[in-house]
Amino acid sequence: MATTDTVTALEVHDVRFPTSRQLDGSDAMNPDPDYSAAYVVLHTGSGDAGHGFCFTIGRGNDVMAAAIGSLTPHVVGRPAPATAADLAALHHDLTHDSQLRWLGPEKGVSHMAAGAVVNAAWDLAATRAGLPVWEFLASMTSEELLSLVDFRYLSDALTPQEALALLRAAEPGRAERAERLRAEGYPAYTTTPGWLGYDDAKLARLSREAVAEGFDQIKLKVGADLDDDVRRLRIARESVGPRVRIAVDANQRWDVAEAVRWMTALAPFDPYWIEEPTSPDDVLGHAAIRAGQPVPVATGEHVANRVVFKQLLQAGAVDFVQIDAARVAGVNENLAILLLAAKYGVPVCPHAGGVGLCELVQHLAMFDYVAVSGSLAGRAIEYVDHLHEHFTDPVRVSDGRYRAPHRPGFSARMKPASLADHRYPDGPVWRAAASGPAADHQHTTESERPEHE
Amino acid sequence: MATTDTVTALEVHDVRFPTSRQLDGSDAMNPDPDYSAAYVVLHTGSGDAGHGFCFTIGRGNDVMAAAIGSLTPHVVGRPAPATAADLAALHHDLTHDSQLRWLGPEKGVSHMAAGAVVNAAWDLAATRAGLPVWEFLASMTSEELLSLVDFRYLSDALTPQEALALLRAAEPGRAERAERLRAEGYPAYTTTPGWLGYDDAKLARLSREAVAEGFDQIKLKVGADLDDDVRRLRIARESVGPRVRIAVDANQRWDVAEAVRWMTALAPFDPYWIEEPTSPDDVLGHAAIRAGQPVPVATGEHVANRVVFKQLLQAGAVDFVQIDAARVAGVNENLAILLLAAKYGVPVCPHAGGVGLCELVQHLAMFDYVAVSGSLAGRAIEYVDHLHEHFTDPVRVSDGRYRAPHRPGFSARMKPASLADHRYPDGPVWRAAASGPAADHQHTTESERPEHE
Repeated sequence: MATTDTVTALEVHDVRFPTSRQLDGSDAMNPDPDYSAAYVVLHTGSGDAGHGFCFTIGRGNDVMAAAIGSLTPHVVGRPAPATAADLAALHHDLTHDSQLRWLGPEKGVSHMAAGAVVNAAWDLAATRAGLPVWEFLASMTSEELLSLVDFRYLSDALTPQEALALLRAAEPGRAERAERLRAEGYPAYTTTPGWLGYDDAKLARLSREAVAEGFDQIKLKVGADLDDDVRRLRIARESVGPRVRIAVDANQRWDVAEAVRWMTALAPFDPYWIEEPTSPDDVLGHAAIRAGQPVPVATGEHVANRVVFKQLLQAGAVDFVQIDAARVAGVNENLAILLLAAKYGVPVCPHAGGVGLCELVQHLAMFDYVAVSGSLAGRAIEYVDHLHEHFTDPVRVSDGRYRAPHRPGFSARMKPASLADHRYPDGPVWRAAASGPAADHQHTTESERPEHE
Repeated sequence: MATTDTVTALEVHDVRFPTSRQLDGSDAMNPDPDYSAAYVVLHTGSGDAGHGFCFTIGRGNDVMAAAIGSLTPHVVGRPAPATAADLAALHHDLTHDSQLRWLGPEKGVSHMAAGAVVNAAWDLAATRAGLPVWEFLASMTSEELLSLVDFRYLSDALTPQEALALLRAAEPGRAERAERLRAEGYPAYTTTPGWLGYDDAKLARLSREAVAEGFDQIKLKVGADLDDDVRRLRIARESVGPRVRIAVDANQRWDVAEAVRWMTALAPFDPYWIEEPTSPDDVLGHAAIRAGQPVPVATGEHVANRVVFKQLLQAGAVDFVQIDAARVAGVNENLAILLLAAKYGVPVCPHAGGVGLCELVQHLAMFDYVAVSGSLAGRAIEYVDHLHEHFTDPVRVSDGRYRAPHRPGFSARMKPASLADHRYPDGPVWRAAASGPAADHQHTTESERPEHE
């Protein structure tokens, strides 16, 4: 058995959903996303498999798929990951290949590809353990968790000894917090009302509906036009009342001074945070924006790696850390980021949405509550009611809370029919599109933002 | 003529040189590089062409080639670039495609691919103008140069008005400085003596030879073992005497405290700079290293984009800015970086070596001298005597100086026979390798560094 229990194949799919036709997901920087996944399956000699993916918004998903495929020699033939030791070794080999590091290092396409494979290995390992990933992680000792983290470049902010102390401090109460999650779930917020493509009436209606559904936080996209944003934020505030949190998200639209000016104008409507005010690489810019206006600052969905998160925390640049499950090198690197956030006492409010990001990241937030931060204060996971029907273990959100997943694995598995239907460019959905009027959107750039419905 | 003067095809080559067999290019992070290029040719209806490339060190070069190929719809059918306006538009479209930005934004594989295509367009435009790129740039007005720059995310450090003032201040003397370059060349330094794979006798011999050849600066790789580095730096200092500059390069090996400790130990040998002491993403780490030990700090060859360079300058983190011609989005983004460095008064000493990086970057350094910084003080372009024979317009270095290129274009064109011979994996060089003992080095990671000769 032992000799056949290896990874036998790495299978890659380019899967895309034609979401640009409805302008769901439209924001100030991304007018026409086609939500997509570069999807990977690790097959093993034992017959079970691990699933993972990167999220993209259309063009370039083929490049991501090629990058994942290029990792095949690192994965096929390895023992199937089952323990923290195996997962740490896989993570190390994928992120420390000296030739592949030249393509980053630890950023962009090559890094996201490593993350997809690492996450697929976590899906496999947790499935084998018969536990959802959040419980699989929470079943590990503090020492096992520590061994998963690559501390290179972190020691000026967080040493292994400090990280171990944080984990040990969270050991008491792990079981109680897990039980509370199973009973009550984890807070969610919804971005559904606030896409830029929606008109005022739809914004007001969806905002009221969100509150009626039990959400106590919503999010609006901003950044295209200040007068529009003032009007939209007023409508949202009038729709939800003074107690519901309204976060706003500029999707990297501004320079520093513009962010300060814009958010000073929106501050009277009491935004809970301003998300991605500027370039995700701009640590000092975020610090200046935070210092220059009264609204708390959040970022992370495009932050390339733990080194940039480290600096955002060192510089006091953020009030909220927004991890993304599929941007960095998988569970291992996100564990490093959770520990950094805990060290600096900054709450983690994960980014989600897209394709399957909610499914993945709920596990990380719940694990954070059980075994790292030990707190729900100020925290919520983003929720977008979108494309979940394509997953075999979709998120369950009710009364404004994510319900704890109980099925083994990472909730990462897409239905075979969904993979087949949305295969790009030759799946049925895309063959149908090629004969329709919506097919030609290959050249839209930000400056050519289409008129909205 | 006008209707046929478009880009008609984008052709991509995966070209690799089996340099790992000799350990030329070995350093503390890159034990076995196979110097490679993802090479692009833009063909036009007029019959002329533009050439460009990304440099990689082996694995992943196929992913880079795929990323370049994915830009075909943005390029084919466009008017052939000939003016600053065309080049600015191409640069904008390649870096602001909203869907492709998700893969970065502006970093890693997707960004380097954009850079290769932008640089190929510069090769085409300068060829058509009958000028080498450095003179083509220097022939533009300050306003034309300004129009080439994407100022997004820069305005807190450098406004367009400030940049224009810098360019105008350098207008007097442009012609005299260009003439001086044609007569005297641009200072070079050599990394040839200092690869980690070389033994002490070879280090001493090559160091002496470098001085005899007219170089007044050499560079040593460091970071694998402190005792070795102390011994090697002593040998190098004894070999070249007290007046020749010795830079050292750690290739991102250290955390902050380790860099401070290591460089404090090497400081008695008077290193000119410590290059890449830690992660290229770690702005605050570089600032801490600069503050914590006496050796000046240099970085840049892996800095992802202008936003990170901006912060390195804002934070006072670097004494030398090391632009790379093929890491960021081509000439346009490097112009932004040259302007930022000029604003902060920090000298630019370009990274080169690899495949063709010397050929490209000499044009940028010479343009910087003519029309931006106006100074050679403290400046030198890296030189490695390696693989130049594969280019049709190779660099000419003599008496320790780069001689000014005078042939039209970007010196970017590889000989057709070199492209064919080194095509991966089926070119003659690689088919021969596949039958020899050196063929299987697919799984070497940093921790498995091979014994050196």
